[in-house]
This record gives sequence, structure tokens and C-alpha cells, in this order.
Amino acid sequence: MNAQFKNIHKVISSYIEISDEEWAHYSSMLQVKEIKKKDIILSEGSVCKEVFFINKGLLRIFFVDNNGEEKTFHFALEKTFATDYKSFLKEIPSNYSIQAMEDTQVLVMSLDMILGGYKMLTNGEKLGRLLAEDYFFMFNDKIQAMYTQTPLERYNDLTSSFPKIFQRVPQHLIASYLNISSVHLSRLINAS
Amino acid sequence: MNAQFKNIHKVISSYIEISDEEWAHYSSMLQVKEIKKKDIILSEGSVCKEVFFINKGLLRIFFVDNNGEEKTFHFALEKTFATDYKSFLKEIPSNYSIQAMEDTQVLVMSLDMILGGYKMLTNGEKLGRLLAEDYFFMFNDKIQAMYTQTPLERYNDLTSSFPKIFQRVPQHLIASYLNISSVHLSRLINAS
Repeated sequence: MNAQFKNIHKVISSYIEISDEEWAHYSSMLQVKEIKKKDIILSEGSVCKEVFFINKGLLRIFFVDNNGEEKTFHFALEKTFATDYKSFLKEIPSNYSIQAMEDTQVLVMSLDMILGGYKMLTNGEKLGRLLAEDYFFMFNDKIQAMYTQTPLERYNDLTSSFPKIFQRVPQHLIASYLNISSVHLSRLINAS
Repeated sequence: MNAQFKNIHKVISSYIEISDEEWAHYSSMLQVKEIKKKDIILSEGSVCKEVFFINKGLLRIFFVDNNGEEKTFHFALEKTFATDYKSFLKEIPSNYSIQAMEDTQVLVMSLDMILGGYKMLTNGEKLGRLLAEDYFFMFNDKIQAMYTQTPLERYNDLTSSFPKIFQRVPQHLIASYLNISSVHLSRLINAS
């Protein structure tokens, strides 16, 4: 197997059974893309045409709030997917932008590949269901966290799910993700 | 067909093709339940064992925030589903409570029925995928609205998606849903 496809094969195999023949055919549609640090690969307002699987590096998903401020919504780590799935599936303008925080290698999946996979893979619909469920749960957790967690609890959750974040992400973006000021973040760091 | 099952049949048929034979078997597992106004059918902290399809009436989904305040998260209208899907599928304690705002008739689907449907219906996994996607998009929109819309925009969205809300829901719960004070809501009503 192409070494660049090992990570995604492992992730997909964790959701469904997929035969070697199916995988050979399916993975032949993957495209490898290198993204330079700071490059924007999806801009708010344009239709999201791709799902990205991160082999190496880090992506940031963000949007602009009603005060014109950039809000970091999510940091997408290695071996996870990043996209605006609603824009992608419905072919409507995206509400998010996606930017590389480091030199990043992604595998690119087109709409044809994703929808074709749902139809053609033996367990394609199941894969789609399980992925949609997982990302649904992630959004659910984000909403809950916004309302029910203190900034300190959100900070602790973030640093435990993303231990090296301070080496990889500038502090003002971490503050933006936690929806607190940089000063507030400094206090949390000093207290922890 | 049982008249009480017409609405749900229509909704499911809008997602997938389902034969009369499949429907007869599948719908035989549905249970009709009448809920009295104000009754709680899911309590935060308990495992959510059921998906509810609302035939008639109105459910409110809410949780308690970190200030101990009740936050109304969603009003589930006729012909839609209500559940804590994460608690339900993962069999973990729920973060939400569900309460009837009116005398409400629901169809109850158990975990066995839902998981069985994914496996046994010809297009079961597809149904699960499309439903998960739709609810994922709903959560996505809620997060976006929280950050990017003004209270007036959220108010206008709510009254257009739920035109009779003021006849069916007390104002303090509408304010809680919009995440504004009752005084702020009164100003929006008077200005509109």
C-alpha cells in the first residue's frame, strides 16, 4: 500500500470492514497535496469542494463573528478530517475558512469520491453514518462546552486533547478558540 | 396503514425508498405514547433510551449551564425527531432534559429498533447517514448563529421557522432559547 495512505486506511478500517480490493479502488481516487504554513485552503463564502484528511501538520478552522472578529472554531490534528461538510454536501457557500498552521500534508477527497464511496463500498453508507455521527457529537460537545464549562474547564480539555498546542499554535489563536481574551488565557496558564 | 404512523412514514420516505413490506415490519416496532404538558421524558444525567418522533404537540430540549441557569436548546416541532442522540447511541448519561410544552403524542423508537433498522432495512444505513447529517447541520447552524448573528437576527430566524411560537411557548423560555434577557426580548418584540 502507498505509505501516504496508511493513516487514512487505518482510520476508515476503524469504522468499517473494507476489503483490499475495495480499498485499492477507493484509495486510487485520493490525491496527495502539500500545503504551506499559513496558506488558506478554504475561504468563507466559497463552496467547499473537498474533504481533507491530515497526514501531517495542523489545520485551523475559523470564521468571522458579528463583531468582525476571527473566531477559531477547531484545530484539526493529524489523522482527522477537516472540511465544511454542510457546504461540501449541499454545494452552498461555506461559513468557515481553513488555514494551515504548519506545512501540512493532506489527502484530498472530492464530492464524487465521497458520494461514490457511500454508494459503491459495501459498507459505504455505514461509514458515512458513523462519520456524520462522530462529527455531530463533536459539535454537540462544543455547544455544551460553550454553555456549561468555565474557561478553565475548556482550557483543561483543550490541553489534554491537544497536549503540544502551545508549541504549535500562537497564544492569541488559543484564546480565540477558548473564546477568552489573551490576558485571561495568560492568567489560566500561570495558574495551571 | 395505522393513521398514527402516517407522518413518520412520510418523513422517512423523504430520506430513503422503503417498501411496503419493510415498512409494515419496521413500523410494527413503533410505540405510541401520550405525554402530558410539563412532563419530563428525559432527565439530564440519565441514559437516553429512546428517540421520539412528534406526531402532535411540542417538546423542549434544555440543559443547565454553569451558572445553574436552565438554557433552552431546541424546540422540537411536529414531524421532527427529538432525543439526546449521543447519550442514546453511546448509552452514556444525557446532558439534556426533554419536556413536553403541550399535551404531546410521540412515537417511541428504542435503540434496538434504530440499530436494527440500520442493519435490516435495505437503505437503513443511508437513512442513518442522512438523519445524522441533517442533525449535524442543525447543530452547525446553531453554533454559527451563536457567534455570528445578532439577537435580532436570531429572533427573526426563530419566528420565521416557528411562526406561532408566542402562542405556544412562554416568553421567558423564548428568551432563554435566544440567550437574551426577557427585557431584551420585549424590546425586540416591540420593535418588530
